[in-house]
Amino acid sequence: MRVEEWTFYITGKSLSDTKLLAKVRNFEMIVDEPAEIGGTDEGPNPVEYILVALAGCLNVTIKGIASEKGINIRSLEFALEGRLNPEKFQGISKKERAGYKEIKATVYIESDTTKEKLEELLKEVEERCPVTDNLKNPTPVKIEIKPK
Amino acid sequence: MRVEEWTFYITGKSLSDTKLLAKVRNFEMIVDEPAEIGGTDEGPNPVEYILVALAGCLNVTIKGIASEKGINIRSLEFALEGRLNPEKFQGISKKERAGYKEIKATVYIESDTTKEKLEELLKEVEERCPVTDNLKNPTPVKIEIKPK
Repeated sequence: MRVEEWTFYITGKSLSDTKLLAKVRNFEMIVDEPAEIGGTDEGPNPVEYILVALAGCLNVTIKGIASEKGINIRSLEFALEGRLNPEKFQGISKKERAGYKEIKATVYIESDTTKEKLEELLKEVEERCPVTDNLKNPTPVKIEIKPK
Repeated sequence: MRVEEWTFYITGKSLSDTKLLAKVRNFEMIVDEPAEIGGTDEGPNPVEYILVALAGCLNVTIKGIASEKGINIRSLEFALEGRLNPEKFQGISKKERAGYKEIKATVYIESDTTKEKLEELLKEVEERCPVTDNLKNPTPVKIEIKPK
């Protein structure tokens, strides 16, 4: 049996010490850091984009699984937050991990079903949402340097 | 000793089964899916945003550590890709994980130093880059449903 595989690509060009121009198919976007973190604040920062990825993935996964279960979702909103200690990134300390220690997502759902059914839906979403999986479980990241 | 902690926030509103409007401080952006995946193709998709987050984080971390080491980087570009099997997300099969099985990042660097020094730099980047850390290592993701 053939296992389907999808590959996604992006490219990026550094515009400054904090700013990157990313190209995703026909879309372009800026990653930057807020002024408090030494940036020029022209776009969300890298760890904020993780939260955007997660919210986007929860949206499509919740809607897809709700549709399978015959649940009608009338409105769906998200509030996400992540906490990190910047000291490893800054080279000050190695006491704590570099990235988010924890990410919290609150999902506000208006639907035609019960809280219990929504909790069942959520369990399946947590298994099947690609971004949740990439965060909760180890994902190999292979970085290769090519000097020009 | 006080350990500093930074918290990042975003909110999102579902606009369709695939489309999300995300708000990050003063920035707004659309997450969507390409038409081939059933979307309306108005923005990058969730797993593409992961790659944007990673490229942005590699940019700021490489530049920061290069500066600490006195390495001058003249140009810095990125090409990232991630492979996944969509069958778990689609509910077809549980054979493979939902998210990226692997992410590859190629980093094109023009600098005033040797390949060896750049490889040393990369090792430190892999430890200190927050997004690399959140992908390579397990990150708790707590999702709470609030029915409206």
